[in-house]
Amino acid sequence: MPQLRLALAQIDVTVGDLAGNAAAVLDRTREAAAGGAHLVAFPEMAITGYPPEDLVFRDSFRAASRATVEQLAAELAAAGLGDVAVVVGYLDEDGGPHKAATLYLDEQSGPRNAAAFLLGGQVVATYFKHHLPNFGVFDEARYFVRGNRFTVVRHLGVDIALTICEDIWQDGGPFAVAGQVGVGLVLNINGSPYERNKDDVRLHLIQRRAREAGAAVAYVNMVGAQDELVFDGDSIVVGADGTLIGRAPQYVEQLYYVDLDLPAAAELRPPTIDRMRVEHHDTRLAAVAPYAAVSPAVAPRIGDEAEIWGALVLGTRDYVRKNGFRSVVFGMSGGIDSSVVAAIAADAIGGENVYGVSMPSDYSSEHSKSDAADLAGRIGANYRVVPIAPMVAEFVESLKLTGLAEENVQARVRGTTLMALSNAEGHLVLAPGNKSELAVGYSTIYGDAVGGFAPIKDVPKTLVWQLARWRNATASARGETPPIPPNSIDKPPSAELRPGQLDTDSLPDYAVLDAILGRYVDGDAGLVDIVADGYDPDLVARIARMVDAAEWKRRQYPLGPKISFKSFGRDRRLPVSNRWRETV
Amino acid sequence: MPQLRLALAQIDVTVGDLAGNAAAVLDRTREAAAGGAHLVAFPEMAITGYPPEDLVFRDSFRAASRATVEQLAAELAAAGLGDVAVVVGYLDEDGGPHKAATLYLDEQSGPRNAAAFLLGGQVVATYFKHHLPNFGVFDEARYFVRGNRFTVVRHLGVDIALTICEDIWQDGGPFAVAGQVGVGLVLNINGSPYERNKDDVRLHLIQRRAREAGAAVAYVNMVGAQDELVFDGDSIVVGADGTLIGRAPQYVEQLYYVDLDLPAAAELRPPTIDRMRVEHHDTRLAAVAPYAAVSPAVAPRIGDEAEIWGALVLGTRDYVRKNGFRSVVFGMSGGIDSSVVAAIAADAIGGENVYGVSMPSDYSSEHSKSDAADLAGRIGANYRVVPIAPMVAEFVESLKLTGLAEENVQARVRGTTLMALSNAEGHLVLAPGNKSELAVGYSTIYGDAVGGFAPIKDVPKTLVWQLARWRNATASARGETPPIPPNSIDKPPSAELRPGQLDTDSLPDYAVLDAILGRYVDGDAGLVDIVADGYDPDLVARIARMVDAAEWKRRQYPLGPKISFKSFGRDRRLPVSNRWRETV
Repeated sequence: MPQLRLALAQIDVTVGDLAGNAAAVLDRTREAAAGGAHLVAFPEMAITGYPPEDLVFRDSFRAASRATVEQLAAELAAAGLGDVAVVVGYLDEDGGPHKAATLYLDEQSGPRNAAAFLLGGQVVATYFKHHLPNFGVFDEARYFVRGNRFTVVRHLGVDIALTICEDIWQDGGPFAVAGQVGVGLVLNINGSPYERNKDDVRLHLIQRRAREAGAAVAYVNMVGAQDELVFDGDSIVVGADGTLIGRAPQYVEQLYYVDLDLPAAAELRPPTIDRMRVEHHDTRLAAVAPYAAVSPAVAPRIGDEAEIWGALVLGTRDYVRKNGFRSVVFGMSGGIDSSVVAAIAADAIGGENVYGVSMPSDYSSEHSKSDAADLAGRIGANYRVVPIAPMVAEFVESLKLTGLAEENVQARVRGTTLMALSNAEGHLVLAPGNKSELAVGYSTIYGDAVGGFAPIKDVPKTLVWQLARWRNATASARGETPPIPPNSIDKPPSAELRPGQLDTDSLPDYAVLDAILGRYVDGDAGLVDIVADGYDPDLVARIARMVDAAEWKRRQYPLGPKISFKSFGRDRRLPVSNRWRETV
Repeated sequence: MPQLRLALAQIDVTVGDLAGNAAAVLDRTREAAAGGAHLVAFPEMAITGYPPEDLVFRDSFRAASRATVEQLAAELAAAGLGDVAVVVGYLDEDGGPHKAATLYLDEQSGPRNAAAFLLGGQVVATYFKHHLPNFGVFDEARYFVRGNRFTVVRHLGVDIALTICEDIWQDGGPFAVAGQVGVGLVLNINGSPYERNKDDVRLHLIQRRAREAGAAVAYVNMVGAQDELVFDGDSIVVGADGTLIGRAPQYVEQLYYVDLDLPAAAELRPPTIDRMRVEHHDTRLAAVAPYAAVSPAVAPRIGDEAEIWGALVLGTRDYVRKNGFRSVVFGMSGGIDSSVVAAIAADAIGGENVYGVSMPSDYSSEHSKSDAADLAGRIGANYRVVPIAPMVAEFVESLKLTGLAEENVQARVRGTTLMALSNAEGHLVLAPGNKSELAVGYSTIYGDAVGGFAPIKDVPKTLVWQLARWRNATASARGETPPIPPNSIDKPPSAELRPGQLDTDSLPDYAVLDAILGRYVDGDAGLVDIVADGYDPDLVARIARMVDAAEWKRRQYPLGPKISFKSFGRDRRLPVSNRWRETV
């Protein structure tokens, strides 16, 4: 059986940075060649970054993507790397100006989510993604024309098929074709965003596809974050019978090497599926001389909290970095939300780049100031105190404010203060809102909602506490100072906008709230079904009304990393003007 | 030839208000019956409102939509209206009890953008939209499974085919099938959002489809607004040869009557297109006795400015109304933007429901106060003055602010003031930003950008002036007081955030800016192509960088009515983290 050393390059690329991304491919290929790899596989759209969104509609961008791939092939050869096969994702267009993508199977011209096989200074073969996800955060039917050709490259004695991301999620797709055609290896390149528990699904899916294809499958995924999406790596290789051969860690940029013994290329049988065309390329390079294979490491699975924390940290770090910031600023209230945001930020960019501001009002408790100072000390953050009473007093007096209007002015004076410090000192403002409060609108728009990024906007309140305890326990286990003041975890949550205020004055216990929200928001459940699960009908109806009424505020909320099945943002698109009310 | 009196019901429905929308269908059908109509056609998704977005994913919502249509059929019959045919759009799912009867082998089950033909208390026939738009503001591939059946109802001696919206934009779609099958009339029900110059395209398109179908075409469109979309009506009827028979006005809710002489139903010929099935229903009602037809009025075309103004006024009115507000508040600066917003708001909900706030700072000119007061007087708005100097001074002193940070604090104190008045008095806050300043980020987030709705966010600055002059001239021509102070139109624009500041300090002349932005934003043009049109390379590059850098602010900007080919919002989806930079 021919041998092949694969290097799966789970790397962090940046949307739009075509030159930088191509340079990363070149560097990693050089490193892989030094490591003895015969083929290096890079993620989906590694040249353009993923998802490029409406950049796809610019002729100049599409032309640049294609030109970058052709130039990359030449540069690889010029660098003496022409005999290492490189598979890389990019944006292509096979002919003609852009037309709006439709769902029709019939071949048409238009932008393509493409994979190129580079060798000897040439683009030897291309593959166009067959299955275009158009649900959740994905709008690929907006951007791409689907491919309908099946691409096989015979290289070093092995028939290697190319596929992209969503292709692996569909029965009867190119993996079924691979099974009918007969190949030795199927490559699957990905820009697959993290969501909770998705990694548990991936392995089973890849095993199923390997059996469908009757071939080994190598799955490579990007690492890094783009706006609200976090790509977690977790590259996987399985044998033709579905046996797990190797698995790379999550959130770590690396070349993951796997030595495979693969069946020798057979003659291709004719395709048997309607409208599919097999495109066969032959590099005319014979199998490599036998060499001593190395067993790949199988990265251990990490726990649920570690996985989520990793997503939040990487999501925050990459947003800061890719938008040209070096530091962040936010209000440190001593509460659990801002404390967890602080710990995430410190893990992402270092405590020395975190600027905490305590902004006490007349209603702030003593512990809110002492806990905030304690937090800043634990994570090594910069810390200052800006009392808001003088500014608030001017508003209250000038406008004769009382009640909710007075409460909100406090939050908005804090928001204005943070934005002023951002303007003056160049920090990115982080918004500390959690998913539960975003859901029910328990936040002040233009107040605590200001910021460019919201690290925990997809984390329900109960999970915020759970993560805090986990992060502290992890620190203790390592002999480090737990970052989050225990008092911030244990005290009852309060917005402190009026004397003695507690969240529970207007909200149910968070365990109950999160259970209802999980059903209504993440599950799109009807109210009758939620009530049938044992929740109070009046409470369920009240919570649903709060969620619906807060839609306008969520539309104006900063981006934050998606960790759940359904995050607020592009993942959940509900009308603001909406009179749908269910009876219970 | 059989006669038929159609009533095209261009009505304003509300997303989610299924009971209210069905009641409107019943009321309008009663009115149409009194007017002698034989068939009343309602818009696309008139039962659910359009677009319902992710409400489609709720089982409870889909079930309610279907149940509402069935109940409506029964209620129409109970009201003595069972002999009037009603065609109405709704959300269906063929996963229910009728699944076996309606599902074809190559069809998936799932949510449908559907039209029902109601008669005699029954749903006589259904049609599922074939062509699902998934570009611009449309995400229909996210929501619906496309139909592949062609539905014909033989009624009163005429074969009537059903189609929905986007079906009319595609060559070779159901209109081509109609031509091969042979029908007397094709109904096309729409939720077609307004954009500039679209009405000029519509008529030609409908004429082309009529010739393709060899049949008269009746096109009915909704009137009203839903979040950022405005539906302008403009219902149209053409003969089989494409001759314009009747055209309803834009922006006016009404029953538009047309008497047609239509060819008698022939036997259906067999279908000739792959995967298409003709579904034929016969109401077994013979042609009506001859009656005296009435010539339909053809509504005159209105000018470009009148059309745009109509969209902005209706968009604002419906957002206010459908979100439960009665009044609006915003800063009256004496500048052109807030003055035009004031005139729109006064036209939308009456000047007595408009609350203007002059918020002078130390840098405000005398004319900014006098022009604002003049404006309020002209439109009959409520008006007050809230000096911001005391609040600004506290921030500046407390935080030692200078430069941009000090400028922005002024805008944010104003934003906080408006939100406080909204909280205290219950007004909706309007944001007065125009498209040019949103494009280049020439606005202060959480400052002048606060609000629930932004009436002119899709109007470039040069068009703001043009609309102001047009609106004043219209008033003068009617013998009314022009709403906008001439001085607000004529003076050079300034944000007045520092002494003597003018927009032209940091921006080119707006005519040049808008020309560049039209190409870069609306046209997705590459910088090289813009420069080739005669613009300064450095300026083009600088403007493009400003547009890209302001993406994060636009994401947090309020909704506003779409009037252009490409509006900021769901229409234009660009990454925030984006390193794409073109060289010029």
